Amino acid sequence: MSDWLAGLDRRAALRAKAGLTRRLRPRGAADTVVDLAGNDYLGLSRHPAVVEAAAVALTGYGLGATGSRLVRGTTEPHAALEEALASWLGVERALVFSSGYLANLAAVRALVEPGTLLISDAHNHASLIDGCRISRGDVEVTPHGDVAAVDAALAAAPGRPAVVVTESIFSVDGDLAPLRQLHGTVRRHGALLLVDDAHALGLIGPEGAGGVAAAGLAGEPDVVVTATLSKSLGGAGGLVAGPAPLIRDLIDTGRTFIFDTALPPAVAAGVLAATRLTRDGATLRAELADRAAAAVRRLTAAGLTVSAPAGGVISVDAPGPEAAVDWAADCLDRGVAVGCFRPPSTPDGRSRIRLTVNVGVPRVDFDRALDVIVECAP
Amino acid sequence: MSDWLAGLDRRAALRAKAGLTRRLRPRGAADTVVDLAGNDYLGLSRHPAVVEAAAVALTGYGLGATGSRLVRGTTEPHAALEEALASWLGVERALVFSSGYLANLAAVRALVEPGTLLISDAHNHASLIDGCRISRGDVEVTPHGDVAAVDAALAAAPGRPAVVVTESIFSVDGDLAPLRQLHGTVRRHGALLLVDDAHALGLIGPEGAGGVAAAGLAGEPDVVVTATLSKSLGGAGGLVAGPAPLIRDLIDTGRTFIFDTALPPAVAAGVLAATRLTRDGATLRAELADRAAAAVRRLTAAGLTVSAPAGGVISVDAPGPEAAVDWAADCLDRGVAVGCFRPPSTPDGRSRIRLTVNVGVPRVDFDRALDVIVECAP
Repeated sequence: MSDWLAGLDRRAALRAKAGLTRRLRPRGAADTVVDLAGNDYLGLSRHPAVVEAAAVALTGYGLGATGSRLVRGTTEPHAALEEALASWLGVERALVFSSGYLANLAAVRALVEPGTLLISDAHNHASLIDGCRISRGDVEVTPHGDVAAVDAALAAAPGRPAVVVTESIFSVDGDLAPLRQLHGTVRRHGALLLVDDAHALGLIGPEGAGGVAAAGLAGEPDVVVTATLSKSLGGAGGLVAGPAPLIRDLIDTGRTFIFDTALPPAVAAGVLAATRLTRDGATLRAELADRAAAAVRRLTAAGLTVSAPAGGVISVDAPGPEAAVDWAADCLDRGVAVGCFRPPSTPDGRSRIRLTVNVGVPRVDFDRALDVIVECAP
Repeated sequence: MSDWLAGLDRRAALRAKAGLTRRLRPRGAADTVVDLAGNDYLGLSRHPAVVEAAAVALTGYGLGATGSRLVRGTTEPHAALEEALASWLGVERALVFSSGYLANLAAVRALVEPGTLLISDAHNHASLIDGCRISRGDVEVTPHGDVAAVDAALAAAPGRPAVVVTESIFSVDGDLAPLRQLHGTVRRHGALLLVDDAHALGLIGPEGAGGVAAAGLAGEPDVVVTATLSKSLGGAGGLVAGPAPLIRDLIDTGRTFIFDTALPPAVAAGVLAATRLTRDGATLRAELADRAAAAVRRLTAAGLTVSAPAGGVISVDAPGPEAAVDWAADCLDRGVAVGCFRPPSTPDGRSRIRLTVNVGVPRVDFDRALDVIVECAP
């Protein structure tokens, strides 16, 4: 036991030395910081219609769902949200989970049978990586965005069940996977394509239906989509969307669905309102694209190395983990929150700051925030 | 691809044949069913103080946390809730997760280093089992509640790091693990004890602080506690509680903590209010214990085989999965919701109905519900 605690202290000291200590910073409701760090891309978490829908359900149902989805946790807002999501995404059925992490664990596991090969992009999110691990499939990690490597991996395993696992817009650098080419490869080999659309949902595609819809793959029977309800939709939770037999399988056997308390009804109701606003959100999306382009111009002009954003994530290189921490801290001292990504949260060991474009921030504050980021650059 | 969909259909047909098809039943806000199925043990999900605290935070913060705990997701209600939980449970620190499932995945993984032996009770919850799987420790499953088997497993691995993993009150049969004896064994062998207190928190122990506190083990440096915020606390989310170095480790390295959107601030605020009500809830706990005893008397007198409840879970044997389904469906037709547990949600392959004692239900309705359960018995 004392060995255990001493070991934890020793590892904490090593992390501190490497600049990898993390700190929780509670914010208040009246916080005046300009938020270029969160994922509330369309500013819907505070939209009056979203808050009002959640408040009505809170009064009607109480706070918690009181049980798992199969026991007492499924309410009318859950059912309505699942119908709205399926219709929006152009799939047969959608299933809501209490988090995107749990949705990804369920989705990967549902697609693995004995002998399945999982081909996973090197930049995939922790929840997809854990999904691969928990499913006990054989995992082959392919270089980021490398369709030829995926094709080679599939060609090397003829006749074997295989699933290609990718994000659409990647969470760290904000780039978009070559989904159409990946699907062509997958289809040719008779494999399946699992796409985590968390950072694209609401931002790209027809009516903001996400990266899979943008690639013309909505409703394809060999494509499974996952996403969060906590980013452009402003709430919390996750979803799996795809062919009806898959959703039925998840309801009957998905461990992170069956054995988990349902999303609170008020959250489901708020997200349902956000779904409607997002489908109708062409103006919000145009503003987001305009801000993203302006940010790239401003930061590049200042000599910074900036990723090419497909949606609302912009990554800016930092010289190292401590420089990234200092940069983000200096911005925060001047009233601007940006993300600070260091190992182990970065897939390539590099450190960067990350901006997310949040349409809920007044434009004048957004532009000023870019100035602050440039002025604080190491 | 067509193979895949055909395979899903084939497996669904096999499940249907075995009586294992599951169905989601959305309930409305005005639902008049008497709830003996959910986990809202103390009726706090609808308590005015809980709903009001959540509503205030909803208005102040908006719906979602907008990011992970380390980015923008930590708010003052999260910090206040973590302090309140640590104080209540008598531990150095507590950390809030967006679900109990994710808390368990993180807790098990944090305790495993290369070569660690995980000794897991045969009745453990799916999230603990998945935690063992994802951590890649060697797992030895011991018979349910069998301290001698745990002792033998530890004795057979001298000098090896080991973690004994158990629930306190088990979710299916409602029985209590022999925590004091387990801890004696763990201490003697220099191992660690991880206890999922989800179904005991709020119900047993001093001020309802749970099974670990009831066993006199609160704050022991070789004990780690996990729980949900969605049962007696009426909300959603999970927690890990224990020594400060462990919590610091989870903040720095816990994948299901770092890479997950935070619990909505309104949920944290509502659960904080519920935490205060629960600490002061001696009257609610006395009523719950009285109802549990009354239920056992009534059902046993009717010739049914009933588990001995340590908290609010009572399991009643059913002859098989289809009989259990019919029994629960007949109760529901008469306005009483009970849980129906069948494989694979039961650890022993047996089917049962499960009642949970919900103090939020008027006593007269609770007593009538027991009559309905007896009258519908197969």
